[in-house]
Amino acid sequence: MLHVKTPEEVLTLIEQEFIPLKENVETIPLSGAIGRVLAEDITAREYVPDFDRSTVDGYAIRARDAFGCSDAIPAILPLEGEVVMGEGAEFELQPGTCCAVPTGGAIPKGADCVVMIEYTEDYGDGTIGISKSAAPGQNMIFRGDDVYPGKVVLKKGRVLGSQDIGALAAIGCVWVPVIKKLTVGVISTGDELIPPEEIPGPGQIRDVNSPMLEAMLTAFGTEVKNYGIIKDNEALLASVVKTAVSECDAVLLSGGSSVGVKDASCRIIESMGSLLMHGIAIKPGKPTILGKAQNKPLVGLPGHPVAAYFVTKLFVLPSLGRLMDRDMNSYTVTAKISESVGANHGRAQYHCVHLNKRDGELIASPIRGKSGLITTLAGTDGYFCISRDCEGIPQGAEIQVTVTLGD
Amino acid sequence: MLHVKTPEEVLTLIEQEFIPLKENVETIPLSGAIGRVLAEDITAREYVPDFDRSTVDGYAIRARDAFGCSDAIPAILPLEGEVVMGEGAEFELQPGTCCAVPTGGAIPKGADCVVMIEYTEDYGDGTIGISKSAAPGQNMIFRGDDVYPGKVVLKKGRVLGSQDIGALAAIGCVWVPVIKKLTVGVISTGDELIPPEEIPGPGQIRDVNSPMLEAMLTAFGTEVKNYGIIKDNEALLASVVKTAVSECDAVLLSGGSSVGVKDASCRIIESMGSLLMHGIAIKPGKPTILGKAQNKPLVGLPGHPVAAYFVTKLFVLPSLGRLMDRDMNSYTVTAKISESVGANHGRAQYHCVHLNKRDGELIASPIRGKSGLITTLAGTDGYFCISRDCEGIPQGAEIQVTVTLGD
Repeated sequence: MLHVKTPEEVLTLIEQEFIPLKENVETIPLSGAIGRVLAEDITAREYVPDFDRSTVDGYAIRARDAFGCSDAIPAILPLEGEVVMGEGAEFELQPGTCCAVPTGGAIPKGADCVVMIEYTEDYGDGTIGISKSAAPGQNMIFRGDDVYPGKVVLKKGRVLGSQDIGALAAIGCVWVPVIKKLTVGVISTGDELIPPEEIPGPGQIRDVNSPMLEAMLTAFGTEVKNYGIIKDNEALLASVVKTAVSECDAVLLSGGSSVGVKDASCRIIESMGSLLMHGIAIKPGKPTILGKAQNKPLVGLPGHPVAAYFVTKLFVLPSLGRLMDRDMNSYTVTAKISESVGANHGRAQYHCVHLNKRDGELIASPIRGKSGLITTLAGTDGYFCISRDCEGIPQGAEIQVTVTLGD
Repeated sequence: MLHVKTPEEVLTLIEQEFIPLKENVETIPLSGAIGRVLAEDITAREYVPDFDRSTVDGYAIRARDAFGCSDAIPAILPLEGEVVMGEGAEFELQPGTCCAVPTGGAIPKGADCVVMIEYTEDYGDGTIGISKSAAPGQNMIFRGDDVYPGKVVLKKGRVLGSQDIGALAAIGCVWVPVIKKLTVGVISTGDELIPPEEIPGPGQIRDVNSPMLEAMLTAFGTEVKNYGIIKDNEALLASVVKTAVSECDAVLLSGGSSVGVKDASCRIIESMGSLLMHGIAIKPGKPTILGKAQNKPLVGLPGHPVAAYFVTKLFVLPSLGRLMDRDMNSYTVTAKISESVGANHGRAQYHCVHLNKRDGELIASPIRGKSGLITTLAGTDGYFCISRDCEGIPQGAEIQVTVTLGD
């Protein structure tokens, strides 16, 4: 029998056995940085904005010059200039005067707030009437309010989103240090497998895992090197795995679901470096092998696509994330389960679901199907887990669903 | 004053005014289809699997030949052959005999179940002892269990995930009909703007919106055509918008936050086709303009990056989704808010948050900051909305957060 590990034990093992790659940084243009993993903390070297800036269209004044004004008794201030967008406000505002400032414009020295244009009237005689006072600092951003030298704007390990790209642009970081893309080798094995473009003959089945894994890894942001379908021949398989280990940062060997081939996978992985574990207490996905060669994960995935899918999501991507020192945050949505799901057998059990909104509630419908079907994955919106100590989930209970749209 | 519309009204307007593009389908290889939008329902033309298939290593038998067997009294059946992986089972199993079958192997005619190898013993004399009966159909998948001709495997509009790529591989769909990528034109306007790679002079500020929008659109799966920073000159801007409308499927004009330029944007958008609305009851993002020219959305985005960010997420991407007839499912995670957030002013108010897990609970920390700062976006994990009829949210209350990692 396999000595199986719990999912938590496997994740701890991954954390312990693999270390972030060194000298794995490249500097790329900001325009290509979306979705990449930040390799260093990003610290600002400048003030943003570099000048006091108005957040409204209006008049810059000294706040005290309009205290107590109202519609009935406006403060009347001589207009002493206009700030032009994109130019500095080089003059100093004298007490008792005002200056027109557009949204985003620089505020002249001497002014300490901006009155919105809606609360002013231009009398046309060189004076402005102000009918509502403003507090010092109102309607303006001070120099460095957004960023100041030394401020950490983004932390290493972050997967860059568009909100971060904006911040990097703001501070002039147009070359971004990111973790190099990993290259992951994918090998399918099995005498029954044919490439997806071929028509299956008797006893043959299309290779689902290679294209599925390639898609999943691409969405995760790695390069994929596909070694094709290798026949169940231990020597041949060993030589392909050896090549893959030398060419890639991680190798996924999928298939070999028959006993003899599983043993061969174990032997091959062990011969490359060390075997870390064999068997995870999850369903589907139990016959998983994890090994290591030169800090590179070698994973023997189950041949069943659904099992390979879950093992990759749950353990392979975290292993790659560890090599990249990448944030692996994931969140779940709460949904009501549409039907009860029975007990499992001492293993954490994963089910795919469809999600639908009904009367303002999110409903998760688990997909039923025998082990080994691929279409129990197709078109699904996410998955949930029945933990090993749970006897089953009754209809209408709330479950936590990991959403998997487009990845 | 602007006649503002509620967010719901704007989404309805988008649905009414724009129609999915016609003749916008291309057929691409399966290996590039992850993240693309399916253009047609995908219907299977074959049986998957195309043969009855074992899900375990064991012996195919007629179930009735082992009924009533046990450890003490095994059923003893002559071994009449072995199925080889990747080959058919051409012979017919005779009553009272058995046949060795590997996981995934074809099951010969005449057999109706598979007994797992664990419950058998090979006596070495050409017979196999079976110590546990199996029901008909047990440990096997029937021909077409996964897919049969005419079954709809995936529906049009779906954003393809790796689970779908696997299913497409299984049915041999290696050329996939997807919606062509849209091209979106991005124009920044403002005399104060400089490209991110330059050092701001007095009164100048770096253009944040162009790179941020480009990143957001790229993550959404569109091509971006960047028209650069255009000075606040109505004739010049009009000519660039005209070019962009002729070259792109949608145009985003961002900036022009000062009153005169806002009016110019309105006039320009109106002159290209029609002005659909001006002003949305959200904060930030109120001064948004939506127009249409030849079924192409023309959007005047606020110049403030945070406002431009939310308007793009909430209204621009749905407009593009409408043109692509793309599923726009999005889900929220439930989190407790770390501090109270005050009432708003009759507008739906959006705040970015950091998400952290603490004692098994998800905590959302709202980012405080004046309007117009970009770093209130940087490093955030998602956002939530305080609806217009809500007076504020107390500390510890549950909120619904839309997660925005990496997009």
